[in-house]
Amino acid sequence: MSNTSVSQDVCWYLSGYADGEGSFCISFSPRNKLRIKIEIRPSFSVSQNSDRSEVLKIFQQVLDCGTIRPDRSDKTLKYEVRSLNDLIEKVIPFFERYLLKSSKKYDFVLFSQVCNILKRKNLNSSDLNDIIQLATQMNISGKRKYDKQKLISML
Amino acid sequence: MSNTSVSQDVCWYLSGYADGEGSFCISFSPRNKLRIKIEIRPSFSVSQNSDRSEVLKIFQQVLDCGTIRPDRSDKTLKYEVRSLNDLIEKVIPFFERYLLKSSKKYDFVLFSQVCNILKRKNLNSSDLNDIIQLATQMNISGKRKYDKQKLISML
Repeated sequence: MSNTSVSQDVCWYLSGYADGEGSFCISFSPRNKLRIKIEIRPSFSVSQNSDRSEVLKIFQQVLDCGTIRPDRSDKTLKYEVRSLNDLIEKVIPFFERYLLKSSKKYDFVLFSQVCNILKRKNLNSSDLNDIIQLATQMNISGKRKYDKQKLISML
Repeated sequence: MSNTSVSQDVCWYLSGYADGEGSFCISFSPRNKLRIKIEIRPSFSVSQNSDRSEVLKIFQQVLDCGTIRPDRSDKTLKYEVRSLNDLIEKVIPFFERYLLKSSKKYDFVLFSQVCNILKRKNLNSSDLNDIIQLATQMNISGKRKYDKQKLISML
């Protein structure tokens, strides 16, 4: 569904819902077999108890991308967009238009910058350094498997 | 701030935020000194990490009522409306206009019915029975200090 055919009301409602329950995340995994040694996976997700999954379906319909699946715990469902193309072409333009109002908006800006670097071909170590610098400023209250120094040491 | 002077965008954003993070609650406490033996306290609340308190201030501004205070844990802030008048005159009309989209909307309907019974003067035991029947259908996934039978036995 393109945004033009969706009511503004629903879009602003989703912006508010995402500001509370959504998460913009950049995750890193060491991959010795890759040229750049680190796999970088951006994602936007919203989790919800499975008895209240209606909103996840509205996200999927309005953003026209992403999947809904049980989370590790079987009591929750997770709406998630992992495709870089969908993030760049659908998710980021949506939240640029329907701006978050909490300080999560700063995470969103960092997330958006990382996605825009990732879409370049043939990332070099300077690009990776930039990504690590940006991503490690995000979600400061959350737990992080690898800190900035550890990530840079993997490059 | 009256709703007419607030943009629809903000109101729908708050509806979405509340659908994720808000809570409509009816709490009961035994009060032997009261004529009706049970104190019934309705409240609408939204909690948030204190580093992301902007949205709580928007709720307070737009709904034109309620307080923001540290929750029991010092890391969170809670926006809360406990005044029955404010709930009936401000909060309930807001969410009747900017409808929730998840199944939390059913909790809201039950909450609204309880508030409307509470505003009558001189509640009798039939009213209290109605309130208990309605309130114990709410927030079924949450913990409840007193179950329906226990509450009815207090009347």
